Amino acid sequence: MPEFELIEELVARIRDHGSAGPPCNVDIGDDAAVLDIPAGHQLVVTTDTLNSGVHFFSDMPAHAIGHKALAVNLSDLAAMGADPCWFFLALSLPAPDELWLADFSTGMGALAARSDVRLAGGDTTRGPLSITITALGVVPSGASLTRSGARDGDLVVVSGTPGLARRALEDLGKGRNPSAGEMRPLYYPEPRLGLAHLLRGKASACIDLSDGLAADLGHVLAASGVAAVLDAEKLPGRDTLPLAYQLAGGDDYELCFCLSQRDSRDLPAWREALGVPLTVIGRIHRGQGLTVVDGQGRRLEVDLEGFDHFAAEEAIDEPS
Amino acid sequence: MPEFELIEELVARIRDHGSAGPPCNVDIGDDAAVLDIPAGHQLVVTTDTLNSGVHFFSDMPAHAIGHKALAVNLSDLAAMGADPCWFFLALSLPAPDELWLADFSTGMGALAARSDVRLAGGDTTRGPLSITITALGVVPSGASLTRSGARDGDLVVVSGTPGLARRALEDLGKGRNPSAGEMRPLYYPEPRLGLAHLLRGKASACIDLSDGLAADLGHVLAASGVAAVLDAEKLPGRDTLPLAYQLAGGDDYELCFCLSQRDSRDLPAWREALGVPLTVIGRIHRGQGLTVVDGQGRRLEVDLEGFDHFAAEEAIDEPS
Repeated sequence: MPEFELIEELVARIRDHGSAGPPCNVDIGDDAAVLDIPAGHQLVVTTDTLNSGVHFFSDMPAHAIGHKALAVNLSDLAAMGADPCWFFLALSLPAPDELWLADFSTGMGALAARSDVRLAGGDTTRGPLSITITALGVVPSGASLTRSGARDGDLVVVSGTPGLARRALEDLGKGRNPSAGEMRPLYYPEPRLGLAHLLRGKASACIDLSDGLAADLGHVLAASGVAAVLDAEKLPGRDTLPLAYQLAGGDDYELCFCLSQRDSRDLPAWREALGVPLTVIGRIHRGQGLTVVDGQGRRLEVDLEGFDHFAAEEAIDEPS
Repeated sequence: MPEFELIEELVARIRDHGSAGPPCNVDIGDDAAVLDIPAGHQLVVTTDTLNSGVHFFSDMPAHAIGHKALAVNLSDLAAMGADPCWFFLALSLPAPDELWLADFSTGMGALAARSDVRLAGGDTTRGPLSITITALGVVPSGASLTRSGARDGDLVVVSGTPGLARRALEDLGKGRNPSAGEMRPLYYPEPRLGLAHLLRGKASACIDLSDGLAADLGHVLAASGVAAVLDAEKLPGRDTLPLAYQLAGGDDYELCFCLSQRDSRDLPAWREALGVPLTVIGRIHRGQGLTVVDGQGRRLEVDLEGFDHFAAEEAIDEPS
């Protein structure tokens, strides 16, 4: 299939799932998209690449690849408190494969429709399988969430159950046969867009968990110039997940955010409204760096320098 | 070099060339960029990928790759009449290579500074060499140039000398030793941003030449619902370039645009101001499709269906 038809086909399939997101004034096929940003709003833009063999195994279902490539970008918008509007898809494929493309675009289209975000342009090229998405959202001017606002006394909250994606990856790698439900956190991460919307004007800092809770919270602490104490016993899934997965697993796309004590009173209502676990796991203090403690308040030795997506188990000493 | 440092290094080098473009409110390192779109303007967005071995030979100098990856995206903004503001760089590299990166970012940074466009975010990943850039520009609301406005009687104008990039490619492929000047159109295409600015409110249609003059003008004709007659004798470089290169070479990144007779009176002043050749090569008519004629008005048989970047020479019968 020539490049031009391939784009048309992809666009049609992805849009088939519903006419999501605000309109484009110039349709796909022109040199560029022309977009209206609502008055009183700022534009929020992020870009992320997934490469075969690096970010996913080559046998990952195309449906899940389509979902995840969009999800990781929408998650970055969520971390900024932005409402997603449009996305641009740059897809490199070794050869056009209609079945693969149908599956890929169905996965991507379903998430796009559900998230009310519109495919506004893209580029399809020949090359090793690689997907780069650039996602655009809007936020009321001055209301974006950043990493730099955490203050002494704030609570540290996390959505969902960080570590599940890593467990699925380990199960896959070790040839176990994880169920669809067990694979879901790795293959179908859910960008926390509804939560992001509620956090605007409330959270003092926010980040999405792509590198792992400890590393990503570390970015917040560094940017905010504060320290945090994290209670390992409070981590969701503590009974079933290795601490290394929870702290350093990565690829979770949950949100970690900081809230004043006062604003934390909204948490039960948010949990109820979203149906998403929101767990207070620690507290911000003056100083710098992250301390992880056990249920008795004993410090756990966590070697942040040694953290790596693919070597998490070596990095953490759990007292036995 | 870890991913994080690699980004920092790239950003520093690219920005070193001058603090170009409007500011970002949240600096690189947060989850996404937060950007202000000036009141009364629309956002224009485009994305293009260059893959090693597909869009360029693996021995293309990194400096030229850096330039060209940005240039082809800025060219799309130019084709819309937009002023470029920011760009996002997704770079996949087999392994960090400091010398290569220094060269790449110098090439990209020089064009960015000259074009007053700011690197506002990106992603660096491991993988086969691939560069995807998403470029953002602005245009006064309603003033973007499109492909669909060409009208009966308009003149067809082209900038520069389409076909030179193809000649350089052929020379390279055949092991000739093209000079730096001869390589320039292929390695260092110049996005026609100054011209784009002048064309706003004047040109009835505009497109940049990536697929070749005949194919790209064909897109304008189809979108506008008109026909065109193109005089082969008027093509710039007619004496020295094969017609196939001129009509179907591709990779030129010149602008092809349509102007009313009246507005064409500005052409001499524009040529003077820009120092860029602007050549009237044909005229728009009612009907559909592109007809190419020789100096005596005889129709040349041009098989549009057969056009292909890599098989241009077979596609056109020149009367001898």
